[in-house]
Amino acid sequence: MAEAVATLEGWWMLHDLRHVLPGLGDAERRERQGALEEYVRAVMPSDPEHGASAYYEVMGQKGDFLQVHLRPGPDDLLTVEEAFRRSHLDEVLVPAMSYLSVVEISTYGAGDRPLPEDPLADPYLRGRLHPEIPPARWVSFYPMDKRRLAGEGNNWYELPMAERRRLMHDHGLIGRRYAGRVKQVISGSVGLDDYEWGVTLFAANPLDFKKIVYEMRFDEVSARFAEFGPFILGRRLEIPGERSLFL
Amino acid sequence: MAEAVATLEGWWMLHDLRHVLPGLGDAERRERQGALEEYVRAVMPSDPEHGASAYYEVMGQKGDFLQVHLRPGPDDLLTVEEAFRRSHLDEVLVPAMSYLSVVEISTYGAGDRPLPEDPLADPYLRGRLHPEIPPARWVSFYPMDKRRLAGEGNNWYELPMAERRRLMHDHGLIGRRYAGRVKQVISGSVGLDDYEWGVTLFAANPLDFKKIVYEMRFDEVSARFAEFGPFILGRRLEIPGERSLFL
Amino acid sequence: MAEAVATLEGWWMLHDLRHVLPGLGDAERRERQGALEEYVRAVMPSDPEHGASAYYEVMGQKGDFLQVHLRPGPDDLLTVEEAFRRSHLDEVLVPAMSYLSVVEISTYGAGDRPLPEDPLADPYLRGRLHPEIPPARWVSFYPMDKRRLAGEGNNWYELPMAERRRLMHDHGLIGRRYAGRVKQVISGSVGLDDYEWGVTLFAANPLDFKKIVYEMRFDEVSARFAEFGPFILGRRLEIPGERSLFL
Amino acid sequence: MAEAVATLEGWWMLHDLRHVLPGLGDAERRERQGALEEYVRAVMPSDPEHGASAYYEVMGQKGDFLQVHLRPGPDDLLTVEEAFRRSHLDEVLVPAMSYLSVVEISTYGAGDRPLPEDPLADPYLRGRLHPEIPPARWVSFYPMDKRRLAGEGNNWYELPMAERRRLMHDHGLIGRRYAGRVKQVISGSVGLDDYEWGVTLFAANPLDFKKIVYEMRFDEVSARFAEFGPFILGRRLEIPGERSLFL
Amino acid sequence: MAEAVATLEGWWMLHDLRHVLPGLGDAERRERQGALEEYVRAVMPSDPEHGASAYYEVMGQKGDFLQVHLRPGPDDLLTVEEAFRRSHLDEVLVPAMSYLSVVEISTYGAGDRPLPEDPLADPYLRGRLHPEIPPARWVSFYPMDKRRLAGEGNNWYELPMAERRRLMHDHGLIGRRYAGRVKQVISGSVGLDDYEWGVTLFAANPLDFKKIVYEMRFDEVSARFAEFGPFILGRRLEIPGERSLFL
Repeated sequence: MAEAVATLEGWWMLHDLRHVLPGLGDAERRERQGALEEYVRAVMPSDPEHGASAYYEVMGQKGDFLQVHLRPGPDDLLTVEEAFRRSHLDEVLVPAMSYLSVVEISTYGAGDRPLPEDPLADPYLRGRLHPEIPPARWVSFYPMDKRRLAGEGNNWYELPMAERRRLMHDHGLIGRRYAGRVKQVISGSVGLDDYEWGVTLFAANPLDFKKIVYEMRFDEVSARFAEFGPFILGRRLEIPGERSLFL
Repeated sequence: MAEAVATLEGWWMLHDLRHVLPGLGDAERRERQGALEEYVRAVMPSDPEHGASAYYEVMGQKGDFLQVHLRPGPDDLLTVEEAFRRSHLDEVLVPAMSYLSVVEISTYGAGDRPLPEDPLADPYLRGRLHPEIPPARWVSFYPMDKRRLAGEGNNWYELPMAERRRLMHDHGLIGRRYAGRVKQVISGSVGLDDYEWGVTLFAANPLDFKKIVYEMRFDEVSARFAEFGPFILGRRLEIPGERSLFL
Repeated sequence: MAEAVATLEGWWMLHDLRHVLPGLGDAERRERQGALEEYVRAVMPSDPEHGASAYYEVMGQKGDFLQVHLRPGPDDLLTVEEAFRRSHLDEVLVPAMSYLSVVEISTYGAGDRPLPEDPLADPYLRGRLHPEIPPARWVSFYPMDKRRLAGEGNNWYELPMAERRRLMHDHGLIGRRYAGRVKQVISGSVGLDDYEWGVTLFAANPLDFKKIVYEMRFDEVSARFAEFGPFILGRRLEIPGERSLFL
Repeated sequence: MAEAVATLEGWWMLHDLRHVLPGLGDAERRERQGALEEYVRAVMPSDPEHGASAYYEVMGQKGDFLQVHLRPGPDDLLTVEEAFRRSHLDEVLVPAMSYLSVVEISTYGAGDRPLPEDPLADPYLRGRLHPEIPPARWVSFYPMDKRRLAGEGNNWYELPMAERRRLMHDHGLIGRRYAGRVKQVISGSVGLDDYEWGVTLFAANPLDFKKIVYEMRFDEVSARFAEFGPFILGRRLEIPGERSLFL
Repeated sequence: MAEAVATLEGWWMLHDLRHVLPGLGDAERRERQGALEEYVRAVMPSDPEHGASAYYEVMGQKGDFLQVHLRPGPDDLLTVEEAFRRSHLDEVLVPAMSYLSVVEISTYGAGDRPLPEDPLADPYLRGRLHPEIPPARWVSFYPMDKRRLAGEGNNWYELPMAERRRLMHDHGLIGRRYAGRVKQVISGSVGLDDYEWGVTLFAANPLDFKKIVYEMRFDEVSARFAEFGPFILGRRLEIPGERSLFL
């Protein structure tokens, strides 16, 4: 068997997309707006060291309202889910799609160096494992798998480590060209949800999502091995503060 | 890796297909008709330089009412979506399917010439990037992907640029034979929605949709690499003006 | 690229399958029965030269009521759809599946002879392009595609014309053995709906549907290239006249 | 093309799986229980020569109530479906899945002997074509296809008759080892429903379903060519008589 | 054909995942909470020799409440399902997904030794066939298949026994490295539900689910032959006792 790559894991991540039920009257909208602001305040981590949450209006019919929550562990995410249910917002924000994952750093880039014993002691790794949610106005989310097709060389999980390392290195070069324009959070979901990874991109200019993902499609590892799930595009909603979806 | 093709992007595009809920009484139908006309007027761009919208009755059970919106950016499309929700039309026009993309020109046809620095300064490119919606009575919409099958030469994103250029050139020749009968808008959706492109065709005679798409199926790039999503056929509805779906 | 086959097109065709909502009381059933008969009379072509419609009770849970409409053009089919909505029958006959296509004659059988300039002037071709709906008691409908698999010779749209001609010829021989027992209408839907063709079979003995489709599965073109969608089996309902689904 | 195998057909077969709607009060449950018993009596064939029906409680969430009906022809099955609707049981037993097929004997086992002119005159064949529903307490139902993969020897419908005969013979040997423990009814559905066959197994010990289906998965024809649909497991419900799902 | 592996079967297993309906008022929540506790007490096996049940809150939108029931036979599981329906909890805990299987030991590890005549007489085998549900706080469930792809050596059910034995042995070595951290119950569902196996993992630290499943993905048998269904992650809910989903 091929050598498994070691991974470092950080905060747990929940993407929660919902439809807004139509047909709310003005009074109910105001009441729901209040409940939404109260819920957002209630689940906001008291300290940026304890996690982060962000909210987005989503384009098209896949859903209307996306929550992105980062928390130290799955218990914290369940606490958020319970607060949502107790707010009765689940009566008007009905399920569309969710995705559960854990922020992940693969160590393909580390070569043969030993892994750090305490990754959180390294400020760079800590910043990646406990990421801020950038204030960028736009978000793109999609889950993905690595392919395991029949035929010599077509199964990612059978490629030798050195080959996977080379492919991931080349893949990373494209990402670097978008530094400062697109920030990404990679999260692993093997054993947790239906794809193997979640990719969350943040940008001021949403056209950069199209540019980077299209350019990557020609990169060898994506061309040969990437299998993509649905794509979600959302615009940041500052709650409390901005006029939100009920008003 | 294969060389990525450069693309030019223009207006953002939203296809929004909805079912009409049955069971509306006469009074409610008149009221909804008024709301629809008001909504259409509200979101109509003040100037053809600022975008375009068109409305269609759709055949069969996939949906009843298709909106096609072209706007400078995704913020403008979200503004349209919010106006729709505020009109309360979402209570009777319920989600069937949507598609988000950006008008795109690939540059396979440009050979090795450098790309224009400001494509919008070129009237021909501007016309393609900020397209009018032709007044044609019929529209056909479908999303599509390029295949990445296993086996030598079966992965579009691994073909050399010269090979892709040749295939796209031949593909374009068929389109040209339909000039004057079928107008098409190609929009890219990599990173934005679930397929890689949207194709929107406009024609006076809807049989031309069948003719051109069938003829193209034999063309090499479609035969080997095209993967098609659902097909939607609609007839133009002039709102305000024509008797619409509620009356 | 392989040479595209020319096609002749005739009437447009809509298959519309619906579920009957449960829970109607006796009075409502009588009222709906009246509305159904009125609707059927309203959309009935005034002349067999202007189209045809037939109605079927469908077996199993895929749907309960199938409408098959043949009309000169898609405008006529939209007129039927609008009449259906205006009848308020959409409140109790809810969407299950629909299929849009155009009656088609491929010209594989014509060899190298030139196509007729006016096919409708030829009584044989006219009869096939503007087909009657046979009074046969049973109908079977299914959509289908031709496969485009990876590997030499596995892509229908890359086969040379002569090879496709041979395969379609052999395929036709099976059909001829069922002449007088099974009548078929082939309609094309490339660019119009999600499969490439619709096949509508009519027979007095529904066992013949199983016999012909099974025998064809061994025929080379079906074995190698046919990809089948869902199969619908229905029994003719003479409306007005026969006791229908509401009584 | 490969030689098609001849088949003998017997009774028509409908599997009809439904969910029981929750929320029925005690009075309504008693009333529905009465309606169910009345419906069962009404559709019961007057004579075992005219068909058979059996009812099952189904495990898990795929459905709650499975009806299996065998009748001389599809008209008889439609009569059953209409009786069900007239009983108003469709208001509380809502659609989950159905399957339409015809009891079938393939003649791979017959070698080169001619087929009987009147199979029903042969008591053995008659017993298989007009099967009793065994009183066994448990039923397993699943639909299936034979695969048509790309590549030499991977397409069932292109294998020579002798090869298919050998494979089916070996397959049958496993079935025989379960004689007395598992009884099976094979029904064909090509041209009638979405898979090619339905398999209905009956056993006193439901573990035998797992044993036989798993053992067969290693048998060459299943390993290489079987494609399975959903599996349904149910326990016999004697109606009228046993306490049924409403009480 | 390849030699089928013998299997030992133990308790039957039902995974039942449900959504909690939103919109319950305080009084109704208390009432449902009481009904839930009463139901849990009613179906609790009187003795650990007679089965086990455990309950979990599920993360994300796939469902809210997971029941895992182990019982001697399918009759016992139907008894649980009927108790659930009689509790009227089905009015507020609506279907999301279920999975039916039987605890299974494959005998790849037994080499050529004969199988025990009475496996339950062996305390080790008895413990695996009639497993306790570990008190671990977290559960992960997923169903899976072994692949049957086209091409030499790509079909699990055609591999020689010795090859399958070697692959399963290597697979087991990974599992052993997680001993004490992850406990697994493997259950077979061929002939019973839509995948071939169910895998239920139990751990104190849910990150171990990601670690073990990801590491196994590189192991040869998983890389080449595993096909995964949906993944469910849940946190133990002690009922009666812990504050549950209604309060």
